[in-house]
Amino acid sequence: MRDADLCITGGTLLLMDEAEQVIHDGAVVTKGDTIVAVGGSDDINNTWRAGRTIDARNCLVMPGLVNAHTHAAMTCFRGISDDRELMDWLNNYIFPAEAKNVDPELAYWGTLLACAEMIRSGTTTFCDMYLFEDETARAASEAGMRCLAGEGLFDFPSPNAKTPDEGLAYTRMLLEKWAGHSLISVAVEPHSLYTCSPQLLKKAKALADEYNASLAVHLLENPQEKTSLEEKFGMRATAFLRDIGLLDDRFFAFHCVAVDEEDIDILADHGCKVVHNPESNMKLASGIAPITAMLERGIIVGLGTDGAASNNNLDMFQEMDTAAKLEKVGRLDPTVMPATTVTRMATRHGAAVLGMDHLTGSIEPGEKADIILIDMDKPHLTPLYNEYSHLVYAVNGDDVITSIINGKIVMEERQLLTIDETAVMNRVRSIAERIRTSLAT
Amino acid sequence: MRDADLCITGGTLLLMDEAEQVIHDGAVVTKGDTIVAVGGSDDINNTWRAGRTIDARNCLVMPGLVNAHTHAAMTCFRGISDDRELMDWLNNYIFPAEAKNVDPELAYWGTLLACAEMIRSGTTTFCDMYLFEDETARAASEAGMRCLAGEGLFDFPSPNAKTPDEGLAYTRMLLEKWAGHSLISVAVEPHSLYTCSPQLLKKAKALADEYNASLAVHLLENPQEKTSLEEKFGMRATAFLRDIGLLDDRFFAFHCVAVDEEDIDILADHGCKVVHNPESNMKLASGIAPITAMLERGIIVGLGTDGAASNNNLDMFQEMDTAAKLEKVGRLDPTVMPATTVTRMATRHGAAVLGMDHLTGSIEPGEKADIILIDMDKPHLTPLYNEYSHLVYAVNGDDVITSIINGKIVMEERQLLTIDETAVMNRVRSIAERIRTSLAT
Repeated sequence: MRDADLCITGGTLLLMDEAEQVIHDGAVVTKGDTIVAVGGSDDINNTWRAGRTIDARNCLVMPGLVNAHTHAAMTCFRGISDDRELMDWLNNYIFPAEAKNVDPELAYWGTLLACAEMIRSGTTTFCDMYLFEDETARAASEAGMRCLAGEGLFDFPSPNAKTPDEGLAYTRMLLEKWAGHSLISVAVEPHSLYTCSPQLLKKAKALADEYNASLAVHLLENPQEKTSLEEKFGMRATAFLRDIGLLDDRFFAFHCVAVDEEDIDILADHGCKVVHNPESNMKLASGIAPITAMLERGIIVGLGTDGAASNNNLDMFQEMDTAAKLEKVGRLDPTVMPATTVTRMATRHGAAVLGMDHLTGSIEPGEKADIILIDMDKPHLTPLYNEYSHLVYAVNGDDVITSIINGKIVMEERQLLTIDETAVMNRVRSIAERIRTSLAT
Repeated sequence: MRDADLCITGGTLLLMDEAEQVIHDGAVVTKGDTIVAVGGSDDINNTWRAGRTIDARNCLVMPGLVNAHTHAAMTCFRGISDDRELMDWLNNYIFPAEAKNVDPELAYWGTLLACAEMIRSGTTTFCDMYLFEDETARAASEAGMRCLAGEGLFDFPSPNAKTPDEGLAYTRMLLEKWAGHSLISVAVEPHSLYTCSPQLLKKAKALADEYNASLAVHLLENPQEKTSLEEKFGMRATAFLRDIGLLDDRFFAFHCVAVDEEDIDILADHGCKVVHNPESNMKLASGIAPITAMLERGIIVGLGTDGAASNNNLDMFQEMDTAAKLEKVGRLDPTVMPATTVTRMATRHGAAVLGMDHLTGSIEPGEKADIILIDMDKPHLTPLYNEYSHLVYAVNGDDVITSIINGKIVMEERQLLTIDETAVMNRVRSIAERIRTSLAT
């Protein structure tokens, strides 16, 4: 017998490895932060002696989900303004509310609240872009979540940086400070091509290259952005990015709704990756991203909720459902984006987008132990013919019962173990009171 | 002091009456099956003495949701086949599975399972179309749910009726048997214009008129149906329905995806009503129904999940979210279908579609007590700026904590009081085993 820390036994395993194996009555063994064995329960129980065993009968056991694009601290602005034109929403509600209120306190507590919600709904890794990202990283690490953090960079002053160079210096500080951390990585994140000069974009790329970091940006979120960027650059935005040297396999882009075949070719040719945000794209009426075309061209696509102000929750299971259904109705073809494809986007491929597929996104020996258990003994998940179908079309976040990140149990039987959620909710409510007051004056 | 049975006090009330009042720290009083008073908690507590009080602090209190189109017993086929062309799905999976397996046992247990799921996610009233609807009605009445039941009528034999006339006779039996029942009503439900002859449609209408019942039908679910019906009738389907006398204010239609301006005019001119099923329309790639155009023309539109084989859950909160977002992206306008409109569709207007707005769909003295409590003290519902926004964009079915139908508590603190859900799930699993076996041979 070999010794281990934790054995999760008796469940149906969806490994989400390259072969996408499903093991009925399977077991996963972890030691420290790492998965050390996967197999049938009997074989595992005959080989391993674990300090702790979790009975996963009636459960699906799968890799924790990867929310590949969000603005975690924007939970503080959840539902503050809906059903408005994008530019009205941004310029008259979100930007003023942010300018007056975003500070380290909001970034920290808003992120902790987002972590509580994300852990409760099966997410174990998220990619963030916001302000005061050192607070985001601190909150995520305290919550025990895996996070790729990145300070949003702009030409204009942000609450955290008076100049673009200050934003870059702050990002460099993050890259230095969090280097080697077991949960936190840092990306360089210029906000978008309509808020960042070519000079800022190039400096951002140089910084990313210096640290071998990813570079991520909002790109072509809607047709208006496509048109205005083409006017600004005298060429398509993707060609511009290529020409200034930003595109490579450490580049990934959020949204990509208004991309055409040539854009897709340019992104694919450079090994770039994409994050799909269907619920936000629907709510803001941005359009339907041509995901099937991207997948056919070999682009690796992840899935993200976007921030809570444009969704308005961070439930990746609902996002998976919507991703499948939106693609079908958008292309008038019910066979596109089947459940397996969507599950892959939310796990292994999401991790690959973030440059983390060696760490998370699948259940395989050697990967970090980022694992969730979904309780299938529920009316809305009965009967069960096909696991992937249920995951995408019937499960919701509340069905996740236990979550393990980096080998540590962060939620058990729906109880959060790393976050005092009552304290966090109360703190965010008082921040919301301040926001409400600031907007009334 | 006046005596009552139940007082729900301290919550935020969304009345969904004509004025759509919101009362903070409000209370609702019920006596027998009826709401007898609504107001501020202090006023109510000074006037009424109730046998039982429910503390609704931190809760939204609103009318139970109306699922205006489902096939409840199809929970037995949940996830049996997805990601397929509609006709492949129907002809090679659903219809054969149904022909071999639908019987009174499946209808009864499948409906009970659906009732468990619907109560758990805030639905208190549903409109059903399936086979052996006497079993559906029996299951719904035992579960304590309000139900408008209707046997699906076809030209061809169904598992319950060898001929169209047998189907009509069965419907007449239902109308007689359930007349005057406190929870169950019966509608006449020819399946569609592509499965029912003009003669069957006219007989169905005569039967509906004889009992002053509603008549409901699947209509123009996708563009292919529109084209083929126009070829069959030599005119548009809505004009054909008008000419054979089916259209009046007791007529309502499911889906209505492929309707144009003239169809909408015809339906509106006759006071017809429509049920929108956005998730099913997306999953089956049917298209996007022009709901805003219908609303602008004054058509009353309800909301439904459709059956669990094409959704694949019966969560009306997810359906509300999708209804809002799909309309926005479909029209490329984020201002259409705001949260208040969607909430109205899922409550008061849904009830009006079913001819039940004198009974349910709002919290008003004189209405039946169909009331749900939603626990808002959760991370994904924090902070709270606007109740309607949270209902549509952030709440999901699991947030419903307590449900009251016709004055009776059917779920309390997430425990079902009218259904033994373990027994129901086990029974449906054994039915699913039979279905699986039947398809393998």
